[in-house]
Amino acid sequence: MQFSSDNWAGAHPRVAENLTRRTAGYDAAYGGGALDKAVAAKFNDIFEREVDVFFVGTGTAANALSLSLYNPPGGISFCHREAHVIEDECGALEYLSGGGRLRTVDGAEGRISAESLDRAIGRFVPTFVHAGRPAAVTITQATEAGTVYSLDDIAAISNVAKTYGLPLHMDGARFANALVALKTTPAEMTWKRGVDILSFGATKNGCWCAEAVVLFDRGKAEEFPFLRKRAAQLFSKSRFIAAQFEAYFADGLWLETAAHANAMAARLATAIRASNNARLAWEPQANEVFAIMRKETMQMALAAGASFYDWPPPHGFAGTIGEDETMCRLVTSFATTAAEVDALAGLIG
Amino acid sequence: MQFSSDNWAGAHPRVAENLTRRTAGYDAAYGGGALDKAVAAKFNDIFEREVDVFFVGTGTAANALSLSLYNPPGGISFCHREAHVIEDECGALEYLSGGGRLRTVDGAEGRISAESLDRAIGRFVPTFVHAGRPAAVTITQATEAGTVYSLDDIAAISNVAKTYGLPLHMDGARFANALVALKTTPAEMTWKRGVDILSFGATKNGCWCAEAVVLFDRGKAEEFPFLRKRAAQLFSKSRFIAAQFEAYFADGLWLETAAHANAMAARLATAIRASNNARLAWEPQANEVFAIMRKETMQMALAAGASFYDWPPPHGFAGTIGEDETMCRLVTSFATTAAEVDALAGLIG
Amino acid sequence: MQFSSDNWAGAHPRVAENLTRRTAGYDAAYGGGALDKAVAAKFNDIFEREVDVFFVGTGTAANALSLSLYNPPGGISFCHREAHVIEDECGALEYLSGGGRLRTVDGAEGRISAESLDRAIGRFVPTFVHAGRPAAVTITQATEAGTVYSLDDIAAISNVAKTYGLPLHMDGARFANALVALKTTPAEMTWKRGVDILSFGATKNGCWCAEAVVLFDRGKAEEFPFLRKRAAQLFSKSRFIAAQFEAYFADGLWLETAAHANAMAARLATAIRASNNARLAWEPQANEVFAIMRKETMQMALAAGASFYDWPPPHGFAGTIGEDETMCRLVTSFATTAAEVDALAGLIG
Amino acid sequence: MQFSSDNWAGAHPRVAENLTRRTAGYDAAYGGGALDKAVAAKFNDIFEREVDVFFVGTGTAANALSLSLYNPPGGISFCHREAHVIEDECGALEYLSGGGRLRTVDGAEGRISAESLDRAIGRFVPTFVHAGRPAAVTITQATEAGTVYSLDDIAAISNVAKTYGLPLHMDGARFANALVALKTTPAEMTWKRGVDILSFGATKNGCWCAEAVVLFDRGKAEEFPFLRKRAAQLFSKSRFIAAQFEAYFADGLWLETAAHANAMAARLATAIRASNNARLAWEPQANEVFAIMRKETMQMALAAGASFYDWPPPHGFAGTIGEDETMCRLVTSFATTAAEVDALAGLIG
Repeated sequence: MQFSSDNWAGAHPRVAENLTRRTAGYDAAYGGGALDKAVAAKFNDIFEREVDVFFVGTGTAANALSLSLYNPPGGISFCHREAHVIEDECGALEYLSGGGRLRTVDGAEGRISAESLDRAIGRFVPTFVHAGRPAAVTITQATEAGTVYSLDDIAAISNVAKTYGLPLHMDGARFANALVALKTTPAEMTWKRGVDILSFGATKNGCWCAEAVVLFDRGKAEEFPFLRKRAAQLFSKSRFIAAQFEAYFADGLWLETAAHANAMAARLATAIRASNNARLAWEPQANEVFAIMRKETMQMALAAGASFYDWPPPHGFAGTIGEDETMCRLVTSFATTAAEVDALAGLIG
Repeated sequence: MQFSSDNWAGAHPRVAENLTRRTAGYDAAYGGGALDKAVAAKFNDIFEREVDVFFVGTGTAANALSLSLYNPPGGISFCHREAHVIEDECGALEYLSGGGRLRTVDGAEGRISAESLDRAIGRFVPTFVHAGRPAAVTITQATEAGTVYSLDDIAAISNVAKTYGLPLHMDGARFANALVALKTTPAEMTWKRGVDILSFGATKNGCWCAEAVVLFDRGKAEEFPFLRKRAAQLFSKSRFIAAQFEAYFADGLWLETAAHANAMAARLATAIRASNNARLAWEPQANEVFAIMRKETMQMALAAGASFYDWPPPHGFAGTIGEDETMCRLVTSFATTAAEVDALAGLIG
Repeated sequence: MQFSSDNWAGAHPRVAENLTRRTAGYDAAYGGGALDKAVAAKFNDIFEREVDVFFVGTGTAANALSLSLYNPPGGISFCHREAHVIEDECGALEYLSGGGRLRTVDGAEGRISAESLDRAIGRFVPTFVHAGRPAAVTITQATEAGTVYSLDDIAAISNVAKTYGLPLHMDGARFANALVALKTTPAEMTWKRGVDILSFGATKNGCWCAEAVVLFDRGKAEEFPFLRKRAAQLFSKSRFIAAQFEAYFADGLWLETAAHANAMAARLATAIRASNNARLAWEPQANEVFAIMRKETMQMALAAGASFYDWPPPHGFAGTIGEDETMCRLVTSFATTAAEVDALAGLIG
Repeated sequence: MQFSSDNWAGAHPRVAENLTRRTAGYDAAYGGGALDKAVAAKFNDIFEREVDVFFVGTGTAANALSLSLYNPPGGISFCHREAHVIEDECGALEYLSGGGRLRTVDGAEGRISAESLDRAIGRFVPTFVHAGRPAAVTITQATEAGTVYSLDDIAAISNVAKTYGLPLHMDGARFANALVALKTTPAEMTWKRGVDILSFGATKNGCWCAEAVVLFDRGKAEEFPFLRKRAAQLFSKSRFIAAQFEAYFADGLWLETAAHANAMAARLATAIRASNNARLAWEPQANEVFAIMRKETMQMALAAGASFYDWPPPHGFAGTIGEDETMCRLVTSFATTAAEVDALAGLIG
């Protein structure tokens, strides 16, 4: 009954097998090898156009370097108030961008709205040096709240960003989970809706360590390798990331694992809807479920071997949480089994 | 006949097998898991004392974060003129330390001498803010020139550093190769000779991606996790690095692979000593061989399928290189076979 | 009728005269001169103890370097939501500290309360690297809202900071205005209430360009010169700042000019209280008056030659602002005359 | 007998007088005032074209921000081995540029040659991320060795820079001294020879604190204000710098003071040529004289009240320095009197 995070699972066996398969033989280091190139080409297929792909080691690196690429002196990027990039990355953006800043936009259920984004950016006068200047917009898909931006949401946000001449970054740490939730294609969910640069995460969804920056704004492609190298994110045996992606994409494994994780979350949500001791904080759309649970129930479940975190309610949470209740977060992954879900469901009644 | 670099090989099969073995099950993320802790404990055994170990993704990260840990405003670290940290890391130290600097010390065959280090540091007056101030000393073991500092060399350098109150960092990208070359122990080669912090590399010697910062100066241990996290080097599924180290250390695999690589280099050196078309630039001690080769011979060998680089002679190289000759670098690894060496030997006659 | 800002005035004639008096003769550069030392000693007198004083060129430099001095990797400083350091310094703190961050604390009339500060800091778990860690607290005295922290307020905030082991910085861009408003001494308003480091501003109150970092936490004194030098804030002819401070302190000029500016603000406030077209947004305590004015009145006043800015109401402003009204800011200085105030009073009726 | 540095003098009386004249009245802050604009226009006259001018507080700021403007990730600027920017600025470039680096070029008498610059840049392969990439070239005029680049020298260096697509920066801390030495115009010495950006120093030549970045590459003009603001170099009462420049340029004061300083250096050189106890290390061309002096003579002169520094001989100095001799530096300024020179001349016989 492991629901702490989707990064508590190991790698999918097919990913590990491919690493074994790729151990033999020589290949050029630092991304110059044949496998690296083949996998980069695969990204073109998946996104239905030429893209530039840069492997990095962590989602934090993907986010910070993506936003650094667009961060001029005095630059400010706009994100949701509870975004990973501001809450959980120890200031990596500020540090790696040499002083970039984040300003938050409020929004229910983990999403910023086009309107509040517009207001937030609109406060800045482009030549007023004291305040700094807008640099980029970043959204998380799926969000930190387990919800998903619709294609129209993304287009609307992108329109606002474009109005101000700003690039749109998508933190896709759970890209596949959003994709299968929306039943859409990578192209539709990104560049066709105005996304300029994407943190494409595969680690949470079945890899060991496979993250990529996907650049649709190709004019920036010459710059990125230097950003990455000096940030110590260029791996010598880079093909170990390529090998993970190779297996991840083969026969649609990535969509399968994401669909599975989402299905397990839905199964858990169904159980919670039926529970007397817990209720959904809001409707989950991907692989994270936020519930309001009786404290007693939570303690009992943990004691019985379930693993998950209580969670601070988001700013402006409209629901009510009783004295004897707490909010908690339950995350499913490719490795979650229906038996695990059902066991937890049994515990929370 | 692959002698381009020790990072052109993949991973050792036992490393890959262990990754497969470790795919199943859950474990805490971000280094908090049982496997991470077990491997950290193994480092204590290997170094015969308590150490603090921090996994990172690349050797560049290990070096830059190690030196950042000791870099005050205006700080200057001292390294060999051809050190990886200044020549091959795209300014990672300057960038990740927020403006740290490097000053070079000359020295034959890849080594700095205690005397020239003393002169270099001694030029700085501690309170003269214009010049900045000495912050650290870093040496590479084995060196970029395929040579090795003796234990006495390390002690002498450490003494100079200590005289100025500076910490000593060792870039151990090829730590194991130096260790087996010196027939000594990790403890003797590091903290017993005054090394305060070590970049412990395993990638070149048989892993996919396994680097660790080993901190002997334990007072700095609380600081490092923040340095690492904001530098985007804290891996969520950190146990994939732990799993590599687990296999690397098991049954002395790491010493075996290093001894093999060194033996292959020695075999190649023997062939070059006997050649009419090439000669050793200097005596190799680890797994890199630098030779002066007739250009014609090099072209012929490359055409026949050998792979290696020509190389700029180091600053102040005392040997002579004829018009029709070039310096080249030949690197062996755990994956190099005697057959490969002999085939190359056959080509260069 | 110039009420745009206290930095629209030039320098006080006695400051300028002293610069002329000091043009002749030689003195050591970079702060080593006799005048620099004499003025530094004068700071000891003023603060009734030994302090370390470092001249810098701008208030932004004083703030950013003060907070940088205490900013570890992943560090977060806490400030009021409308603090100059977050709103008006173009990210200088984030930039000059190599990635430090600011988190805001709400509070009415420009002040943070000890309670909300406690809650804001308390959210952070010291070893939770993802969020980063508290580094410092900064308050502005007088505040951006023209109000003043009482001595008890400062002590309460300082107690909270100390509970968490954090230093307390005071942005004293309008230090003298606060001091005379509280009728207290520099010592009482700073180190006796737990302030560790102070941005001591003299520019707004009658100098051309005279700012100093005053360090009560003397253990940090060796570090600061390097911070300042590499930030390009060490002036070669440093005595030109010293000469300004010399005149500023001589015969209590600084207290006179601040008292005058405050008196002019009080005179203006009295007029606004009596006006039918404007009212005070809150009670001013130093040299800034915030008023809610009929738009028509404001336009008329500007057309008649008055100069001041409309101003966004602070977050959570409890008052009401009618459709036909706007908030505006009126700043007085050493140069403001009673005639100017009365002329504006006449205009706003 | 003050020859320590040209920044040991105060300000020229006409500069101080103008500060007094400008104390009265209000003007917009932060560079938006009438005087700031008038002085900016004056720069257009002086350079015979439209330029963008940005006042900053120190020469170090001017240099570091100029080079930061052109420093991409992994960027490397090339400077003379003894340049102020690498030897005397405490790493400001590396820090303020967020990790930029400097690589030195050797050259006699303080000048780099076009040929050695070409070799130094040519070592870098543009897409080889490991080494980083060339970003800019910076030369100092007059040099740290008291010599001057001829117009042809500048054109040749500029040609090399342009070949590699690099901008050329000139550190003009002693711009006026070089200008009068060459008997040329500001336009001829800068943009007509391919200089893209200039640190225009006035402090050493008679101001208190007046430095400007002059940008000929106008496409970068929108970026600079943000660089400057976040580096804490935007002065609120910016007109105090403008007022200094106003006096500096009025009636050609700046050319007069520079010519005087140079003449005093020439007078001193003449005396040294005639001395039995000292000789010129090389021919001075501006306002710094480097001499090799008997140690005994130096001690005697210092004891008699002369003030100057001994100085490390530059790398590769071809002359000989006896056991009983030392190199020393003697700097003249607008404030140096013929009597001072003659008194020193008398002492060194």
